[in-house]
Amino acid sequence: MKTIYINATFFTMDKENRIFSNGMMIVQNRSIIYIGERNEELLADADQVVDLIGKWVMPGLVNTHSHILMTLLRGIGDDMLLKPWLETKIWPIEKQFTSEIASVSAQLGILEMLKSGTTTFSDMFNPNGIDPNVVMETIAETGIRGAFSYSIFSFGTEQEQKMNLIGAEQFSKDYKNFADGRLTTMVAPHSPYACSPEALIESARIAKENDLMIHIHVSETDYEILDIETRYGNRPVEHLRKLGIFDQLTVMAHGVVLNDEERAILKQYDVRVAHNPISNLKLGSGIADVVGLLDAGIKVGIATDSTASNNNLDMFEEVRTAALLQKGIYKDATKFSAQTALTLATRGGAEVIRMGHTGSLEVNKKADFITIYPYNKEHLQPITAAYSHLLYSARGSDVCDVYIDGKTIVKDGKCLSIDEEKVIYESNRLLNNLTTN
Amino acid sequence: MKTIYINATFFTMDKENRIFSNGMMIVQNRSIIYIGERNEELLADADQVVDLIGKWVMPGLVNTHSHILMTLLRGIGDDMLLKPWLETKIWPIEKQFTSEIASVSAQLGILEMLKSGTTTFSDMFNPNGIDPNVVMETIAETGIRGAFSYSIFSFGTEQEQKMNLIGAEQFSKDYKNFADGRLTTMVAPHSPYACSPEALIESARIAKENDLMIHIHVSETDYEILDIETRYGNRPVEHLRKLGIFDQLTVMAHGVVLNDEERAILKQYDVRVAHNPISNLKLGSGIADVVGLLDAGIKVGIATDSTASNNNLDMFEEVRTAALLQKGIYKDATKFSAQTALTLATRGGAEVIRMGHTGSLEVNKKADFITIYPYNKEHLQPITAAYSHLLYSARGSDVCDVYIDGKTIVKDGKCLSIDEEKVIYESNRLLNNLTTN
Repeated sequence: MKTIYINATFFTMDKENRIFSNGMMIVQNRSIIYIGERNEELLADADQVVDLIGKWVMPGLVNTHSHILMTLLRGIGDDMLLKPWLETKIWPIEKQFTSEIASVSAQLGILEMLKSGTTTFSDMFNPNGIDPNVVMETIAETGIRGAFSYSIFSFGTEQEQKMNLIGAEQFSKDYKNFADGRLTTMVAPHSPYACSPEALIESARIAKENDLMIHIHVSETDYEILDIETRYGNRPVEHLRKLGIFDQLTVMAHGVVLNDEERAILKQYDVRVAHNPISNLKLGSGIADVVGLLDAGIKVGIATDSTASNNNLDMFEEVRTAALLQKGIYKDATKFSAQTALTLATRGGAEVIRMGHTGSLEVNKKADFITIYPYNKEHLQPITAAYSHLLYSARGSDVCDVYIDGKTIVKDGKCLSIDEEKVIYESNRLLNNLTTN
Repeated sequence: MKTIYINATFFTMDKENRIFSNGMMIVQNRSIIYIGERNEELLADADQVVDLIGKWVMPGLVNTHSHILMTLLRGIGDDMLLKPWLETKIWPIEKQFTSEIASVSAQLGILEMLKSGTTTFSDMFNPNGIDPNVVMETIAETGIRGAFSYSIFSFGTEQEQKMNLIGAEQFSKDYKNFADGRLTTMVAPHSPYACSPEALIESARIAKENDLMIHIHVSETDYEILDIETRYGNRPVEHLRKLGIFDQLTVMAHGVVLNDEERAILKQYDVRVAHNPISNLKLGSGIADVVGLLDAGIKVGIATDSTASNNNLDMFEEVRTAALLQKGIYKDATKFSAQTALTLATRGGAEVIRMGHTGSLEVNKKADFITIYPYNKEHLQPITAAYSHLLYSARGSDVCDVYIDGKTIVKDGKCLSIDEEKVIYESNRLLNNLTTN
């Protein structure tokens, strides 16, 4: 079945950054088979024609680091530093989690992501107290695309640590190709400070044997650097390199505190960085030098982190903040152009998490795209500067429709795959049963 | 006539930061005459009862520095430095302005402000080519509260500069108490770099004789500091102090580049700062040390600047960015708490621009308030952490109703005082007639 989308401006975000103002896109078997200007001959061959009534169309946004199972914790422990925030707020609450809480939290987070234009994400979750199968089935039903990582921690007894590693390996295998291939896995040692060297070495083995990426928090704060140096005699990047983590393809979240030598190592091993500008500011971690990373040839994606340290999952706001911060810290408005920023939030982000089959509107890519109807939105006027508005003025609530694998997931701002009212009701009911301080 | 608002959580933003979760507010003659918990006895005496069906209510936001006549220029000249951006993009386009363009631009900007929850603002406009009366009548009809400033520039011939000063003085007097007192004026020498010492001295005289505040751009960039030092032998703050500007109550926009000595001068003269975090980032000016200003006892408000350097007028995003940046540059999540941030965007901002009669929900204050209906918004869940969400998760599009002087200006997201469709249509038509590069 060929579905043809017409009457729209298509921002392809391909390598040439082509824009088709009277564009047309043909989708067949979940993939894009034509993108370009309107073509009457091809149009005659449609099974279904969708008139996009002048909307803007762009690839779905790619969020390269999140924790959707924490969505219920939005607004808990604001204005706190990372370490006490994790140790006195987040982890104690996560200990009370059940599969039901985790599933509702996941739905709430994915609902927010989908409605604000994110179609692909890479998530790390704390498996404590939950049955991964329940959560994965729930996530599969939402229609989103993504990679999931079962956190590996070196906490508790030796037996608990062993079970955690066994659980992580089993999960990585079981869901590597799930939900028609939309969902996959990564191997996620939480961080150099929460994992023993043995757990890190074991993580690398699991990744290698299953051909999976590693997803890990690294170089987030000055405190972490000091801590790892004190414990192991090396800064985090060198510590991980020596343990063989980077011998596997790795995406590290944060990378706020890095020096030239470390950037060279990241480049050498093709380690990618998921940049979380708002979370890094909110937790007082600092501002990552993204221009420095890009100049060193390192692949960078944009990410929200969790709602507990952001506190929303709006990728439009996130990528705008990323762009603005680099201009600010470099005192140079020409740094990190609109095109660079939007690329990192789409095609670039998809490449960072090894999902090059999405992230741009190109032939053979998955039909993952979003639409914005600008004509009744005062903050998107004048409409001639559309490309600029996508970065500098749009917000998640501007998203009208969301398609993943060519399937309509959000229609006119309403999510078709999730019962919105029920998820919001359940979120509040479940949170009220938790002890939050 | 007594109108009583019930069934809402009222975030008063008063000095004690009181929150009434089953609150009630009574409005009579444009002012608040009761705010507190629900009181059945008082309720019996209502002329009209408005059921707010569980909404959150907070004071309207206060935007302390904007240029609404530039709203049509949204997206023109992104990723450029301040000086070439002004000289090659903004000023050449402003030279083509007419009263019609200015009025439509003002309506578009105010429409965006109102719908995103801003009820009071302080604006500076370039009078070139326009009849201020046409613009002021247009602004009056929108129902917004604000102070307007006619820019004083030392450009052109001696005669042109003289006419500019005469125009500014006349404007300051004519509209000092306009639109039932909702609109007033300030005296606005553009900046130390665009005004001669004579124009600055004359500005101070106009302000003094008419008991008006001064509104001026100061210490925005490193380049400005160097420029003023080179030309006059002093940095901008000392230059302005010596010329007597600070003998009048002054609000300076930006204050990005300030040292301890300058902060002491600002404190001594009670000079206030309108902080424009996003514009300062976008133009590569840098990040103002707002914590340093507040610690020095200086009053600070939050502001968007124009859509040409932002590129939206969403004060929720602006105040969030302000809070996040301070945590980031200080590497301390405890800096600039949610309460501090929200205060600066409401009551604090109102005091900065000498409009203490608005900015909080208190008896005798003007009934300027906004509502948010959170129950169908996934990014505002769980609803228990409402106060946190107002800073860290809400966006302008969450605003449901807007009241100014007790009058309904926006109802269910629809502006009642502006013909939205017409303004959007006219904005695009008029922009297309301008030469923009």
